[in-house]
Amino acid sequence: MERVHNFNAGPAVLPEEVLLEAQADLFNYKGMGLSVMEMSHRSKEYEEIINSSHDAIKRIYGIGDDYEVLFMQGGATLQFLTVPMNFCPDDKIANYINTGVWATKALKEAKKLGKKVHVAASSEADKFSYIPKEWTLSENPAYLHITNNNTIYGTEWHTDPVIPKEIPLISDMSSNFMSKPIDINKYSLIYAGAQKNIGPAGAVVVIVKKELLEKINTNVPTILNYKTHADAASMHNTQP
Amino acid sequence: MERVHNFNAGPAVLPEEVLLEAQADLFNYKGMGLSVMEMSHRSKEYEEIINSSHDAIKRIYGIGDDYEVLFMQGGATLQFLTVPMNFCPDDKIANYINTGVWATKALKEAKKLGKKVHVAASSEADKFSYIPKEWTLSENPAYLHITNNNTIYGTEWHTDPVIPKEIPLISDMSSNFMSKPIDINKYSLIYAGAQKNIGPAGAVVVIVKKELLEKINTNVPTILNYKTHADAASMHNTQP
Repeated sequence: MERVHNFNAGPAVLPEEVLLEAQADLFNYKGMGLSVMEMSHRSKEYEEIINSSHDAIKRIYGIGDDYEVLFMQGGATLQFLTVPMNFCPDDKIANYINTGVWATKALKEAKKLGKKVHVAASSEADKFSYIPKEWTLSENPAYLHITNNNTIYGTEWHTDPVIPKEIPLISDMSSNFMSKPIDINKYSLIYAGAQKNIGPAGAVVVIVKKELLEKINTNVPTILNYKTHADAASMHNTQP
Repeated sequence: MERVHNFNAGPAVLPEEVLLEAQADLFNYKGMGLSVMEMSHRSKEYEEIINSSHDAIKRIYGIGDDYEVLFMQGGATLQFLTVPMNFCPDDKIANYINTGVWATKALKEAKKLGKKVHVAASSEADKFSYIPKEWTLSENPAYLHITNNNTIYGTEWHTDPVIPKEIPLISDMSSNFMSKPIDINKYSLIYAGAQKNIGPAGAVVVIVKKELLEKINTNVPTILNYKTHADAASMHNTQP
């Protein structure tokens, strides 16, 4: 039966050859006699799937060994919470540039956690119609968070913001990840919900500088701690 | 090609007719010309999938309108955290019966959150070889949490613990959900990672008494708040 032209903003349209391979693996993974969904995430075949996916992302974006690629659950929505929980200690201020609906949601979750939040720039007064060219960071910033592309308002960062090297630059790249070249080295952490551009919902890709993993707050819950997932090579619990 | 006999403790072995239907829907969902993975979770076809799954669970377990069925992400591991975060206020004590590895993990996350935790009974000293028949609840208990079946030690609750009605009884049923009749009405909340018994990894089934949803702590992060998922009928963000 014919497939339609699908103009959805997301979930991603997947290439037919990918769907056909997934379809085959869903019933009998590479002749093993079981579905990929029935395999233990502790099996060597499953490990190979995860490791080769990590490697493919590293290769495509030219990412070195100073970064970890992680697959986590809960979508970008859960990252709005885990970013400040892990990387904003109580004596620092989480900085955000507010360029749209998702950026607003991200900074609201930081506030809800009780973190000090500073909006370094915002285009809200002008209905998010542009990307600010200037911003003012707070004193003692924990990080600067941006939303690389604003699906709803159609504005996008075409150059990466330049900030002092010692301040982690963090970006939600859910809606433009893998759509263009990105110099990941300019970022300390980026995250992208898989369903928007690169695959089915359920996984979120995180690329994080190993250096940043050394600065995680104390008492972060196990499953929300980036180090848990880095130490387990994304296999702390069963992947979707 | 033949499918093998699969004796894995989990993920679940899925019935061939289910796999074949999923396989067809993966390429072209019911003749719509797109994969189920490419559909918007705001479409009426997708809504129908979620609603009919909620209804099927309610029908199978005879659950009335005083309960909500939710699909959440992050597996049982994330529930270890969300249960105390939502239902243990600072002036109450979270009670646990410790019967194995997963029960221990659950109570550790409550402690990590800074909650007061009371172990009402434990079989740890005897290598988790039995289910305690007696327990002592703390004063001012927020809830009693049990782990219905202990995959690693092979012990299982064959009768439901009887506690005063005003104390919520909460159970991790990941490894025996849908394997036997359960009187859900005895519980205020149960959760089960789907991958163990009923489907692929990524979703966790939560069945929660509406009454309990009125008692959620303040300032629970949006995505970890059970009310968010109840209000959105499990469609707050894209389901895996």
